[in-house]
Amino acid sequence: MSMSGLARYTPQLDIRHWCECRYQSLVDIRPSSIFGTIDAPALQNAELAEQIEYLFADVPVIAKYYKALKNVKWVHTWWNGVDGLTQHTEKENFPPTFVLTKSPGCLNATLINEYVLGYIIAHERLFFLAREQQARTQWNMAALLKTGSLADRTVGILGVGDIGKRLAEVLKGFGMTVWGLTRTPHYGEQGSPFVDEYRTTEFLPELLKNCDYVVNVLPSTPQTRNLLSGGVLEHCRHKQSVFINVGRGDVVDEENIVLAIKNKWLRGAVLDVFATEPLPASSTLWSLPDVIITPHVSGWSNSDEFGTMYADVFIENVDLYFSGQPLKNVISWKHGY
Amino acid sequence: MSMSGLARYTPQLDIRHWCECRYQSLVDIRPSSIFGTIDAPALQNAELAEQIEYLFADVPVIAKYYKALKNVKWVHTWWNGVDGLTQHTEKENFPPTFVLTKSPGCLNATLINEYVLGYIIAHERLFFLAREQQARTQWNMAALLKTGSLADRTVGILGVGDIGKRLAEVLKGFGMTVWGLTRTPHYGEQGSPFVDEYRTTEFLPELLKNCDYVVNVLPSTPQTRNLLSGGVLEHCRHKQSVFINVGRGDVVDEENIVLAIKNKWLRGAVLDVFATEPLPASSTLWSLPDVIITPHVSGWSNSDEFGTMYADVFIENVDLYFSGQPLKNVISWKHGY
Repeated sequence: MSMSGLARYTPQLDIRHWCECRYQSLVDIRPSSIFGTIDAPALQNAELAEQIEYLFADVPVIAKYYKALKNVKWVHTWWNGVDGLTQHTEKENFPPTFVLTKSPGCLNATLINEYVLGYIIAHERLFFLAREQQARTQWNMAALLKTGSLADRTVGILGVGDIGKRLAEVLKGFGMTVWGLTRTPHYGEQGSPFVDEYRTTEFLPELLKNCDYVVNVLPSTPQTRNLLSGGVLEHCRHKQSVFINVGRGDVVDEENIVLAIKNKWLRGAVLDVFATEPLPASSTLWSLPDVIITPHVSGWSNSDEFGTMYADVFIENVDLYFSGQPLKNVISWKHGY
Repeated sequence: MSMSGLARYTPQLDIRHWCECRYQSLVDIRPSSIFGTIDAPALQNAELAEQIEYLFADVPVIAKYYKALKNVKWVHTWWNGVDGLTQHTEKENFPPTFVLTKSPGCLNATLINEYVLGYIIAHERLFFLAREQQARTQWNMAALLKTGSLADRTVGILGVGDIGKRLAEVLKGFGMTVWGLTRTPHYGEQGSPFVDEYRTTEFLPELLKNCDYVVNVLPSTPQTRNLLSGGVLEHCRHKQSVFINVGRGDVVDEENIVLAIKNKWLRGAVLDVFATEPLPASSTLWSLPDVIITPHVSGWSNSDEFGTMYADVFIENVDLYFSGQPLKNVISWKHGY
């Protein structure tokens, strides 16, 4: 008899709670022998793991147990980035045979856009310098008028997918010049009307030279890891760019960010994602001037509105799965996103 | 013989420099007996002051010397708010007979919008709490996920003129619910499509009750002074609003802001304008938690692009004046803006 279920993991976000509530309502109306909730450690029981046919779980749970899930056909995660799993499957040359679906980036896009735009304005209008002046009871107008409006600035978006395209539209709305880095070339009609200049990865230095703000929204794949390491950020020295990372931390190693800040290649950095999370207390980044650290919150909220969106995506796929239709937001094992 | 000129005042902003450069180019091509530059203190010479037919000057210069300018026909200022003059003319019941033109609010609107939006996002996404957590080497995701996206929030704009209308459009672009406070009622087609609810001043309490953010962009007039004083801000307790003042400081007295913050009627305040500027070092506001002080910079920049816009507005009026056409951006002495 096949079984299926929802594997619980240490909760960090209320989003999971919303998905569980909606799942529970499914359990309530279907045979309990098919639907059930499993505490993640129970998957250590090989016999139980083999019975599972579909699973809703957090990425770390899938990464830990996917080899034991020998008969699983479909796994859904509410996570957006699934590199926590694909890093294992790549390394071990063990391409899973099940279909993996996830929450689409567009769910995070609104919050990520607001985060990125907010930090661009905060840098352009020197919000943190204003705060320091206030702490010194200092009224200094001239120090805060050195910059201008967003319309005078250029932004480079590394990764123009679900999230990057929406970000381009928002920033173009403020008159910014927008450059976009993509895996494959974009010509004419193929591109977004909100991206002024497309470049593929080999032209990354040209993009960095031209951009006041460089925003990484790339997923973690073998092609994107360390893309900005190895001194590549020196190309930012022309504009003394501000680097904003809301993609994945492994796009650049910590030493290279420290180097770029110390050499003034970068005017500042806003980092929401890190190779190791939580960022270890020993990291130099915490106390580096002009570096802002946020704990992987750019695309998340614990609001009810936000959790409901995630539950809806999951439940829609449940309906598609059980009516034999193609699932939505399927991960490509080849591309890793 | 009539004379005219540009009266110099202590420079604070490079904008004045740009206007002077453009003015100088006029002086260079016209009879020097008509065009000239006057250092402001020279206007103490009554005979010289009487000769002046038109003047380009800062508001404080006009306020100090306008009675002596007995034959002046037209005065232009690059300032946007002219209450520094109208406060005198009201008090002394001395309505000037000259035409006063100024820079239109739309020149400041882009920068003001970015400032207001930036501080709304900074509050919604807890940028300053994130900075405090960083200073403590603290990785605390949950503390930063308590709020949501702008689309879940309501903003009240006090004053829906040149600047307020543009601000409404920007904030509506992020899905915010927008309330607007106006002097006269707006029905149906009269209103901006980006304002969901219009209210006149008598319904101010209803607006305050409904808004997560209250943004003042009102000019200083007898009708707007102390509009939010006298405990009116208590109506903000329902939403624990954030008050953002980019209009004029005298819309509320300092004691009332302090009271509203201490009583938690306001969750925070972002103050760019004050009844007395620079804000005296003795003010309680400097060190009040949850109050952000900026030194009247929301609508200004020292960028060349910005200065050029102001010079263009001035020069356009010079051309209109000398070709006998109606001037643009004329102040209504009755309304004071």
